[in-house]
Amino acid sequence: MKKENQRKESLGEVIDQILNLLGKHKLVDGLVDKQDIPKQKLIKNLVNKQNLNTLMRLLNDLHPADIADILESLPIDERLIVWDLVKSESDGEILVEVSDAVRETLIADMDNTELLAAAEQLDTDEIADIAAHLPKNVLQDLLESLDVQNRERLQSTLSYKENTVGALMDYDVVPIREDISLEVVLRYLRKLGKLPDHTDKLFVVDREGSILGVLPLKKIIVNELDLKVRDIMSSDAVLFKPNDEADQASDAFERYDLVTAPVVNDENKLIGRLSVNAVVDYIREEAESDKLSMVGLREEEDLFSSIWKSVQNRWAWLAINIVTALLASRVIGAFEGSIEKVVALAALMPIVAGIGGNSGNQTTTMIVRGLALGQVSFSNLQRLMQKELGVALLNGVLWGGVLGIFAYLLYGNIKLGFVMTAAMILNLLLSAIMGVMIPLVMNRFGKDPAVGSSVLITAMTDSGGFFIFLGLATIVLI
Amino acid sequence: MKKENQRKESLGEVIDQILNLLGKHKLVDGLVDKQDIPKQKLIKNLVNKQNLNTLMRLLNDLHPADIADILESLPIDERLIVWDLVKSESDGEILVEVSDAVRETLIADMDNTELLAAAEQLDTDEIADIAAHLPKNVLQDLLESLDVQNRERLQSTLSYKENTVGALMDYDVVPIREDISLEVVLRYLRKLGKLPDHTDKLFVVDREGSILGVLPLKKIIVNELDLKVRDIMSSDAVLFKPNDEADQASDAFERYDLVTAPVVNDENKLIGRLSVNAVVDYIREEAESDKLSMVGLREEEDLFSSIWKSVQNRWAWLAINIVTALLASRVIGAFEGSIEKVVALAALMPIVAGIGGNSGNQTTTMIVRGLALGQVSFSNLQRLMQKELGVALLNGVLWGGVLGIFAYLLYGNIKLGFVMTAAMILNLLLSAIMGVMIPLVMNRFGKDPAVGSSVLITAMTDSGGFFIFLGLATIVLI
Repeated sequence: MKKENQRKESLGEVIDQILNLLGKHKLVDGLVDKQDIPKQKLIKNLVNKQNLNTLMRLLNDLHPADIADILESLPIDERLIVWDLVKSESDGEILVEVSDAVRETLIADMDNTELLAAAEQLDTDEIADIAAHLPKNVLQDLLESLDVQNRERLQSTLSYKENTVGALMDYDVVPIREDISLEVVLRYLRKLGKLPDHTDKLFVVDREGSILGVLPLKKIIVNELDLKVRDIMSSDAVLFKPNDEADQASDAFERYDLVTAPVVNDENKLIGRLSVNAVVDYIREEAESDKLSMVGLREEEDLFSSIWKSVQNRWAWLAINIVTALLASRVIGAFEGSIEKVVALAALMPIVAGIGGNSGNQTTTMIVRGLALGQVSFSNLQRLMQKELGVALLNGVLWGGVLGIFAYLLYGNIKLGFVMTAAMILNLLLSAIMGVMIPLVMNRFGKDPAVGSSVLITAMTDSGGFFIFLGLATIVLI
Repeated sequence: MKKENQRKESLGEVIDQILNLLGKHKLVDGLVDKQDIPKQKLIKNLVNKQNLNTLMRLLNDLHPADIADILESLPIDERLIVWDLVKSESDGEILVEVSDAVRETLIADMDNTELLAAAEQLDTDEIADIAAHLPKNVLQDLLESLDVQNRERLQSTLSYKENTVGALMDYDVVPIREDISLEVVLRYLRKLGKLPDHTDKLFVVDREGSILGVLPLKKIIVNELDLKVRDIMSSDAVLFKPNDEADQASDAFERYDLVTAPVVNDENKLIGRLSVNAVVDYIREEAESDKLSMVGLREEEDLFSSIWKSVQNRWAWLAINIVTALLASRVIGAFEGSIEKVVALAALMPIVAGIGGNSGNQTTTMIVRGLALGQVSFSNLQRLMQKELGVALLNGVLWGGVLGIFAYLLYGNIKLGFVMTAAMILNLLLSAIMGVMIPLVMNRFGKDPAVGSSVLITAMTDSGGFFIFLGLATIVLI
């Protein structure tokens, strides 16, 4: 039996071994290229072949998901050498497992015949996952090579929007009728010989293919064989439609501990199923892309993407931040006269702005989470606002007080200390209001509040903080 | 059959209805308290009772997970009214489903008898989930009320560290022997009458309870009944040990599309199982707590926590940020003489610091993700650093150039423009180095790089950015 921790360690070791073997391979290449003697060429070929053979044996023992992992960890040159070695019956599956960015680099390395062969190993729902990266003519050839049912399935899967149940579902359903006995069901299943992965229930349909209920395998096993399907099926199972949002579906999987669930069309006809492995993949990918999008990164960048590609991936967020930084800079510019008179203001103003930004981001994170869990609505807005304003006031008095004393001790100016404290309190209150309102308003307008909130909050609390602090200072000190 | 989208809408509606009913309840309370006439008291009681009855009927139709969701969405007063109404056979399950913060408020509202009754409805692994919030004497009484096997299980579950397989596993295993026929297996299962949730496979053990393999239910169903267990069991299934990290286990579940997997002790004896629903819950909670911890929030705060509790939850991060802001402020303080001479520096310096922070956070996010996926190690550090430095240089030349021109146009000082561009390039290079190194070093020292990286990066790029910009300006301009 395979111990999980052993596997993990060995995967790290395998990557090291691969890098080692590839290192030798390159070293030999380099050595021999310098001194072009036929005999050494022979040696080079032998050594290389030996290394690559060892490598190939190593790779052939691995699960496609593990190979995908290794490909992700390798810089592009090494990645393509390894990819050439594993190209085989499992390369379709590997293409499904790798990230979008890595898939592009692998597909770019394959010709159309290889791609077609790889894609033909896959199920319809898997083909759909990689279809966006296939060249148009390969996809066309592929569609033509499928039978009518699978072609229709592929076309409809491709037509569903990302992050819907339709895009995640597969077609591995086992439909049965309600009026047969368990004995007949068992006989039918034995004739089938095998069941799709994750099958924990069969789907009960009528003559027209409309769903009537579900029959868990467990129930088939523990019940008497002369019972009819209709006697023991559950008719209140959770159903999905292809256009349901994947977020809602994954909530339901978590909430009701589902393994599979039927997907039906508007006429209640069974068209496919959603399984927990698709849901787990979705949850993981969402969590990843949430983290990336918080700093303006998209998924298309892998660790070893080219510099130019990475710059493209990151520039939009930097551009937005430069615009907001310029705005804040112009706010400061308006008070240059005051700063010239009391230069301490220049040293103190980033503190006010910075802490406001941090506090606002804490508030926003709470609200975004509440929105995602469906706990925040306009009906409890007042309560939330009261709480956040209270927190901001307390923090403002506390930390603003500390910083006021600090400013007084440092510059020996009691009025400066007062301005510091007051500005901290006011900017924290501003950050609380913005921290609550910005995600709510974004959500109202159908935008994802997780993505842009942080930039907007920081823009507000920077410009606002500079304005409040320098404005107060100008009134009180100048 | 239940449509998922219908359910979701109706949950929102239910919350609105509840708030509405609770609103009426309070309104009547308020009205009648003002004019203390016996007859109106009677009316008050009637109206109240009617509202609460409607509410109770509403709640009794819901799944415990849905009630948990509603409790999370309600401010504390309303939450406790609703909690009083649902207290019943399902309150144990509800306590398991709610977040830690909300659980505390609910448990504080229950007496020991109620708590004991609620906990006694639960499985051992569920009791373990809420044990940390139970009063000591309740936990003691609970331990005494359990039979020997369950008491030992509870004690060992409680002894496993958080985020290990042991803390997530349950004890719902169905062990069988390898030398019996499928017919005997089926007869045995029929006698059992029901199988635990999520059972997709039985665990095959020898006389000593050591694991030999797993037998998927699917295989029992599709194979001939005279076959022996040993003929069709898989003996290379993925196994876990209680001290394996939950992260690795959830990776394996995702990678190998598992539904359940056996957990064994060091002597290879079967002690429990890990199921996909525990893994899904874990992945979701981890994703949540990652997001929260990035802004220094812990999970213990719910949306309606008291102001004081929220301040406690958030203060540490603010305190750290204040320290780093003070450091940056002292860097500026050291250049007050230069700022006094060229006040434009005060307006431009936050741009350099801010963009450096943004760019550094993008780099760190990529590296943290790579670390989590096992793709970053010291062996490919050089490549990563080269790439990030390349990105930083390109961004620096590009955006630094734009900002240099902007500074020149605004202040008519070509040297100032040059200082701006040079400082941007240098600070972006600094942010790239720090963005790669900080998470790697944190990881090396066994710290979670997702948590503190952002604060450290920002501290470096703020202080560093001010120093580089003001230092260059002092050399070139003053």
